[in-house]
Amino acid sequence: MTPSRAFGFLLARGRGRLFLSRSLDLLPSQGLFYTHGKLVAQSSKHYSGFSRELDPWKCCFTPSYLGVIEGLKALVTVNFSVLHHRPFSSASTSTKRNPYFSTVSLDDVRHFVDILGHKSVIQDEDRLLAANIDWMRKYKGSSQLLLLPKNTEEVSKILQYCNTRCLAVVPQGGNTGLVGGSVPVYDEVIINLSSMDKNISFDKVNGILICEAGCILENLNSFLANEGYIMPLDLGAKGSCQIGGNVSTNAGGLHFIRYGSLHGNILGLEVILADGTILDMLTTLRKDNTGYDLKHIFIGSEGTLGIITKVAVLTPCKPSSTNVAFLACNDYLSCQKLLAEAKRDLGEAISAFEFMDCSSVEMALTHIEGVRNPLPTSLYNFYVLIETAGTDESYDRTKLEALLVRSMEMGLISDGVIAQDLNQASSFWQIREGVSEATGKAGAVYKYDLSLPVEMLYSVVEEIRTRLGNAAKVLGFGHLGDGNLHLNILSANYDSKILAQIEPFVYEWTAQHRGSISAEHGLGLMKAEKIHYSKSAENVNLMVSIKKLLDPKGILNPYKVLPQSLLQN
Amino acid sequence: MTPSRAFGFLLARGRGRLFLSRSLDLLPSQGLFYTHGKLVAQSSKHYSGFSRELDPWKCCFTPSYLGVIEGLKALVTVNFSVLHHRPFSSASTSTKRNPYFSTVSLDDVRHFVDILGHKSVIQDEDRLLAANIDWMRKYKGSSQLLLLPKNTEEVSKILQYCNTRCLAVVPQGGNTGLVGGSVPVYDEVIINLSSMDKNISFDKVNGILICEAGCILENLNSFLANEGYIMPLDLGAKGSCQIGGNVSTNAGGLHFIRYGSLHGNILGLEVILADGTILDMLTTLRKDNTGYDLKHIFIGSEGTLGIITKVAVLTPCKPSSTNVAFLACNDYLSCQKLLAEAKRDLGEAISAFEFMDCSSVEMALTHIEGVRNPLPTSLYNFYVLIETAGTDESYDRTKLEALLVRSMEMGLISDGVIAQDLNQASSFWQIREGVSEATGKAGAVYKYDLSLPVEMLYSVVEEIRTRLGNAAKVLGFGHLGDGNLHLNILSANYDSKILAQIEPFVYEWTAQHRGSISAEHGLGLMKAEKIHYSKSAENVNLMVSIKKLLDPKGILNPYKVLPQSLLQN
Repeated sequence: MTPSRAFGFLLARGRGRLFLSRSLDLLPSQGLFYTHGKLVAQSSKHYSGFSRELDPWKCCFTPSYLGVIEGLKALVTVNFSVLHHRPFSSASTSTKRNPYFSTVSLDDVRHFVDILGHKSVIQDEDRLLAANIDWMRKYKGSSQLLLLPKNTEEVSKILQYCNTRCLAVVPQGGNTGLVGGSVPVYDEVIINLSSMDKNISFDKVNGILICEAGCILENLNSFLANEGYIMPLDLGAKGSCQIGGNVSTNAGGLHFIRYGSLHGNILGLEVILADGTILDMLTTLRKDNTGYDLKHIFIGSEGTLGIITKVAVLTPCKPSSTNVAFLACNDYLSCQKLLAEAKRDLGEAISAFEFMDCSSVEMALTHIEGVRNPLPTSLYNFYVLIETAGTDESYDRTKLEALLVRSMEMGLISDGVIAQDLNQASSFWQIREGVSEATGKAGAVYKYDLSLPVEMLYSVVEEIRTRLGNAAKVLGFGHLGDGNLHLNILSANYDSKILAQIEPFVYEWTAQHRGSISAEHGLGLMKAEKIHYSKSAENVNLMVSIKKLLDPKGILNPYKVLPQSLLQN
Repeated sequence: MTPSRAFGFLLARGRGRLFLSRSLDLLPSQGLFYTHGKLVAQSSKHYSGFSRELDPWKCCFTPSYLGVIEGLKALVTVNFSVLHHRPFSSASTSTKRNPYFSTVSLDDVRHFVDILGHKSVIQDEDRLLAANIDWMRKYKGSSQLLLLPKNTEEVSKILQYCNTRCLAVVPQGGNTGLVGGSVPVYDEVIINLSSMDKNISFDKVNGILICEAGCILENLNSFLANEGYIMPLDLGAKGSCQIGGNVSTNAGGLHFIRYGSLHGNILGLEVILADGTILDMLTTLRKDNTGYDLKHIFIGSEGTLGIITKVAVLTPCKPSSTNVAFLACNDYLSCQKLLAEAKRDLGEAISAFEFMDCSSVEMALTHIEGVRNPLPTSLYNFYVLIETAGTDESYDRTKLEALLVRSMEMGLISDGVIAQDLNQASSFWQIREGVSEATGKAGAVYKYDLSLPVEMLYSVVEEIRTRLGNAAKVLGFGHLGDGNLHLNILSANYDSKILAQIEPFVYEWTAQHRGSISAEHGLGLMKAEKIHYSKSAENVNLMVSIKKLLDPKGILNPYKVLPQSLLQN
C-alpha cells in the first residue's frame, strides 16, 4: 500500500466549488490519493490508466514526481480515463535551437547555488522532467536546471547573470498554459515562481490586493472570500495556476464578461527585465497619469519581456447570490438577440453568457456520465446558459425571470429552465463544461479557440461544416458574451486530408473577419509563427522592436509569441 | 446687432443634462449667442466681461475666431465674470526650442495644400491664435500652421512629410486639457483632428462603437443614448473634448469608479506613428491574446508616441435610474468606512463617491449663487455625495436607503438626505462642483490633483494646513472612490513664500506615499519635468527608450510628458 511516487495535477471544477490537488502521491489503480505520505482522499472509482484530459476539468498524471506538494485542499470524485495523446499540426515547430545561447556549465550551477542556496537549485531528474513537460504532455523541453527564487532580488540576480552569460530562461508559474508557453523548448533554464507565494497587503476599503507572482489563484480567492471580495478572474485551472502566469498570459476565464480584461483590473506590477533591472510599477492607485502606463506591455507578453514578481489587483466585492438559466433557441440570431436583451435587462449582473449548438449538447449528453438534458422534450438548434451574480437572491431571480418571460414572448427562447438550487445550477454547467470532455471521448479532435465579432461568430462553424460534409462532426460552443468561439472538429481518426480542409482555412477566415486566432490562450510556442493571421506586419514589427529593446539578447522565453525569423535577424 | 466674431467655449455641466456651445458668435454684452449668424440662445443676464473659468463648468472666450462651428446643441443661462489669469509656478517651463527641428517654409505649406487642399491648411491669424492657446489661456504657442486632416491617410501623409523634414507637430483634439499638452510650445505644426468626426459603426449586440478620433464625447453619448448605451466616461468638458484626446490622455472623469479606466474600455485603436506608418489595432474583439497588446502604449501617452485616428470603445448599457445622497460625516475615517460599506452594499451600482471637507463646502456656500446647504442645522467636518445608477428606480433607492440607515446606526453618518427629484440631485452636485468655481472667486489659488491611497489621502491636507497656519486656507475634496484628491490652497494674493511652503513639499509627500502627482490630468508641459516624483528612474528610462524607438526624431508633441534632458541626449 505504499503510494507510488507519481506526480499529479487534478483540477476538478465545479462552479464556485473548486476542488484541487496540485500534486499528489497516488495509487490511482486503487483510487487512493496521498500527499506527504498521508491519505488525503479516496475515490469511489479505481483507475486502469493514469491520465485523462478533461477540459475545463483537466486531469493529468505523469509517472514522474514533481516534488512540490502544496495547495492541496480537497478532492472530489473524478473519473479518469487514459489520456489520448493528440499531436496537433499546429503544435509542431520547426524552430531550431538558437546557437547564440550558452549551455549551463558547472560554474553556472555553482553561481546559482551561491545566489539561491542548494535547495532552490534543482537538478534532480524527476523534478526536472515534470518541469520540462506541460500539463497536457504536448510540449517537452530538455532543461537541465530548475531554479526556485524566493524573492524579487533573487529573480533579479538570476536574470542579471543569465543575461551576461547568454543563458536562455523560461519563466514558469503553475505550468497550466495551453500553448507550450511555460515549458522550455530546448535547454532553457526554468525559473519557477512557486516559492514566491506571499500575500503582501490587502486594502479592505478599496479591495486592492498586493501579492507575489507565485500565489495560486484559488488561494488568493479563498483569502479574499474571508474579506468579502473575489478575484476578478476565474479559471478552470485556478487551483494550480499562479497570478503571475495569469497576468503574463492575460488570462480571460469565466467571469470575463462581468469583470473584463486584466488590463482593467491590474493596478500595478513589479517586473524584472532581462538584464535584472527591477521595474517597480507596483502602484495601488486607481488613477495615475504620469507618463506611459508601462505595466500593460507586460500583461499578456507571455514572459518574453520580463518576469512578473509582484502584482497589485483591484478585486470586486463578492456577490452573495447566483442564478443560472438553461435555455433553448431556434437559431443563432435569437442567441445574439438574447445576449443584447440580457445585457440590457440584467446589466452588469450577468456573470456568464455561454452558448452551445445542438451537436455540442448532444455530444455532452451522449458521452458524459450523469449529464441530463434539462429540456428533454425536444432537441433545439442552440442552447444558452446565463448566469447572474448579485447581492439579492430574490430580486436577482425576479429580474432573470422577467427577462426570460419577455424573451419567450419575443420568440427568442423556445424553452428554458432556471436552476432551483446549487446542484441544479451545477448540472447545467456540467453540460456546458462537458462538451470539451465529450469530444475527447468521441475520437480525434481538432480544437480552435477563436475570437470573432458576435454576429459572424457562428458562420465559421457553418462554413467548415459545409466544407467537411460527412467527413467530420463540427461543434460550435463557447463564451458568446465575450465573442469567444470554441470550434471543435471531430473525426474517427487524425487525417491529414481533414486537417488540410480546416487549416489554413480557419485561420484565413478568422483573419478576414478581423478575428483573433487566440482568444485567451496566447500564442506561446504553438502559434508564434501564426501571429500574422491576427496582427498586421506593422503590428508585428513594432512588437519585435519592443522585444529587442527590452531583451536585446533574446534570453526571455525564446521561440515563443513572435516569429523567430524576425527576431534572429 | 451684427455679432462680434468671437470664439467661445461654453461648457455648462448639469449632471446628465449637458448644454454646450462649442463655438459661438456672440454678443455677450447683450446676452445674445449666435452661430452661423443665427441667434441660438439668449441669456437672461448681460455680461461686462468676456470670460470666466468655472470648473467643472468651464467657460472661456477669446476675442479671436476659431472658425470651426459645430456640435452646438442647446444653451443654458450661464453667468459670466472676467477670467482671472492665474499663472502657476508649475506652468512655467525653462525648456528651450529644440534647434534640431526645422521651421515651416513656403514649400512645406504648398506640400500640405497638395495633400489636404486649401481649406484644411490654416494660416489665418485669428484661427491660429485660438489654436495656439489652451482654454485656460495658461499656455500659448506660436505655431504658424494649423492642419485639419479629414482622414487617416491624410494624417499619415502629414506625419511622413513632417518626419522627413524634421518638423515638430502637436496633435490637437478639443484642446480642453489642463496641463498644456494640446497646444504648441513653440512653432510646432498643429494637427487638429476635428474634421475626423464620423461614427464608423455600432454593434448593438455588444455595445461596441467604432468612430474617428475627432468625435466629440457628448455627440457620441447622444448617439449611444438612442441605442440604449452610454460612453464609459463622462467629463465636465464632454461638449468639446474629442474621444481621440480622451484616449491620448487616458481621461478619468466622473464615472471612473463605475466603469474604470480606458485601458479596460478601449478595445481597439488606429494610430499613426511618427514616420506616417498606419498602425491598425482597430479590433472590436473583447478577447485577443495574439502578441503584445500595443494599443495600451498609446492610451495616456498624450500624443507623444503617435496620433490616434480611430477608436473602438466598449460601451456600457444606459442606466435608467439615478439616486443621489448628500451626507455628513464627523471625521475622515468615517468617510473611508462609508466608502467600504457603500462598495459592499451597493456593489457596482455606485456611479460616484465624492467627498468634501467643511472648508470646501463653506467655500461653495459662500461664493456660489443659488447653492444651499441641504443639511443646514449644523456644519460638519466632512461631506460625502453618493450617486447610484441602475435599472430599477425604487429598488435602487431602497438599497441606498438601507445603506444609509445602517451607516447611521454604525455612527458613520451624522446627517444626510436623498434627493427627491432630479432638481434636488442637481443641487447636491452643484455644491460639489461649485467648490472649484468658488476658489476662483476667493482669491489666489494653488491647485493640485493627486492620487493617494485612500487611508492617507486627507493627511496631506492636514499637514499643509499645519505648515501654512493662517497664511492660507486649505481645502480638500475630490473623488474619494478613486483615491483622487483635489487639494486647493487659497490666499489673498500669489505669494512666492506660500508657494515655497507648498512645493516641493506636496510633490515629495505624494512621492513618499507612493501617490501620483497627476491623477487624471496627465503631465503635458506643466509637469514633464516632475515625472520623477511619481515614477522611478528605471520607469522613466524605459519610457524614454520607448519614445526614442517610436519617434526617433522626437517630432511628436515635443517638450511634453518626459524630461527634455533625457530625450535630447
